[in-house]
Amino acid sequence: MKINGEDKKALWFEKNKIVFIDQRKLPYKIEYFTAKTVEECAFAIKDMVVRGAPAIGAAAVYGMVLGKENLERTAEILRKTRPTAYDLFYAIDYMLNEIKEGKDPLDSANRYVNDIIDRCHRIGINGEKLIKEGMKILTHCNAGALATVDWGTALAPFYVAHRKGKKFFVYADETRPRCQGLLTDWELEQEGIDHAVIADNAAGYFMRKGEIDMVITGADRIASNGDFANKIGTYEKAVVAHENNIPFYVAAPISTFDKTIKGGEEIEIEERSREELSIINNHKIMPDWTRVCNPAFDVTPKEYVTGYITEEKIMEKL
Amino acid sequence: MKINGEDKKALWFEKNKIVFIDQRKLPYKIEYFTAKTVEECAFAIKDMVVRGAPAIGAAAVYGMVLGKENLERTAEILRKTRPTAYDLFYAIDYMLNEIKEGKDPLDSANRYVNDIIDRCHRIGINGEKLIKEGMKILTHCNAGALATVDWGTALAPFYVAHRKGKKFFVYADETRPRCQGLLTDWELEQEGIDHAVIADNAAGYFMRKGEIDMVITGADRIASNGDFANKIGTYEKAVVAHENNIPFYVAAPISTFDKTIKGGEEIEIEERSREELSIINNHKIMPDWTRVCNPAFDVTPKEYVTGYITEEKIMEKL
Repeated sequence: MKINGEDKKALWFEKNKIVFIDQRKLPYKIEYFTAKTVEECAFAIKDMVVRGAPAIGAAAVYGMVLGKENLERTAEILRKTRPTAYDLFYAIDYMLNEIKEGKDPLDSANRYVNDIIDRCHRIGINGEKLIKEGMKILTHCNAGALATVDWGTALAPFYVAHRKGKKFFVYADETRPRCQGLLTDWELEQEGIDHAVIADNAAGYFMRKGEIDMVITGADRIASNGDFANKIGTYEKAVVAHENNIPFYVAAPISTFDKTIKGGEEIEIEERSREELSIINNHKIMPDWTRVCNPAFDVTPKEYVTGYITEEKIMEKL
Repeated sequence: MKINGEDKKALWFEKNKIVFIDQRKLPYKIEYFTAKTVEECAFAIKDMVVRGAPAIGAAAVYGMVLGKENLERTAEILRKTRPTAYDLFYAIDYMLNEIKEGKDPLDSANRYVNDIIDRCHRIGINGEKLIKEGMKILTHCNAGALATVDWGTALAPFYVAHRKGKKFFVYADETRPRCQGLLTDWELEQEGIDHAVIADNAAGYFMRKGEIDMVITGADRIASNGDFANKIGTYEKAVVAHENNIPFYVAAPISTFDKTIKGGEEIEIEERSREELSIINNHKIMPDWTRVCNPAFDVTPKEYVTGYITEEKIMEKL
């Protein structure tokens, strides 16, 4: 990913600490957050200094490096941070296994992270084929480089297509609550890709008007049958895309497929704090008495998915 | 409508002045704005002390009472306040005609306002029959008493049902941009109706979970065939409700039906300023470089509407 024209990553390990781009400060300020302990790493995951399933996995493997002296305790602390993030559990188990096999923790962690980056790049290469000159494409939330260390999942095809010289336009949903659409906006702006932010409410309007040719989102977890969990609102976009005969693609690495669950009904949905909705940038936008229900994710049934863009290939309907 | 337990209206006339609930201060503060002159009334309309087409019409008829000594000048001042508001012109012409016929201006104005209130009350009486004990109902935007002097359109059935002692739960979409869901939240809170605010993105989640039994919204304009324009996002809710077999009702007075247009494709959609999305309560929530597309309304085709709740009756699919 580009930051002010330089190649950067969402997080990296250097000299016994993890350095994160502090995503809580974006898009307004580019600041870095440093974790020297497991607790600081857990805080970074929980407080969304880092967000996005693959990047959380990357944070977790480096968190295991920081806490390698007491692996059981480290794994326990990290597992408690984000219960919906499958990658988190996968990453922790991977590290436990590697270390058990006597491998160097930092080498194993770096291998894991480089593997994520490589897989995302390949998602981009595969997904790029779907992007035709002049297309207008909707994305929801931020499944970009910030969420995956580099390249992204849903945004990876955009980066590959743009660097190949293709011209296209991206509509980025604002993505309330938390407005991660502004992270997508920031990434696309840094990369120089033509785009605009729209209210989540406006996606249907543009679809019906014929202004959206394709939708690409990420996924937090994909069940064996193809149902998938993603940021709240994804389900609505998928239904309205389907109603308007607009192809809807899910971009995710193979690791996001959870073979242990059959269908979306088995995915637990995290209810997050009211403050996610009632506060924006430390500014209260709702009265104290306002009651809020805030499910963070929803499940989109496989029927609404045109295909899954993975690092191996584009899989049609499962 | 209730304010701190007392029966109130969004605006009323007393002792040669108009008193408005100052909607610019809601939901944070309950303050009143007084207009003793035509200029002050014009300011209230222009600065959105009062909003909602029927309530603007009510402000205009009382404005004509304040300026009855120089009707031509008064009409000219009021017409300039919100040039796109159809109710405003209708109300001014009504008053000019009544006064020309020798009627008492205040009597005529009160008749106009009471007629609005009465129609909304009857929408409530008709719509109440749809609300069953224990139901969970979604509404979008604010089609409440604040917008119509009293009762509201989409919210009127809730008020009638609640005062009859029915128990039900309302999900209020936040309604980005402008967050008019917070006005709905405030009205329902004042009335003591059990409810919560949700992100616009979350409506589909609750629908699919079986947590929403019915949707009721208002309408800004209804074409002859039943297609209707309403706040952006209404179309998405209607499609997702349809997909989940959830009844979707539009509540509006007969005057909202525009016989001069056949279908929704004839309704022009207003593109509003980027600041509606990028600023909340004078607080910037997007960087200055963010490009925004902001259609203010969308059109929902008649196919997604279960029925129209009017002051005369509930009309099934047109």
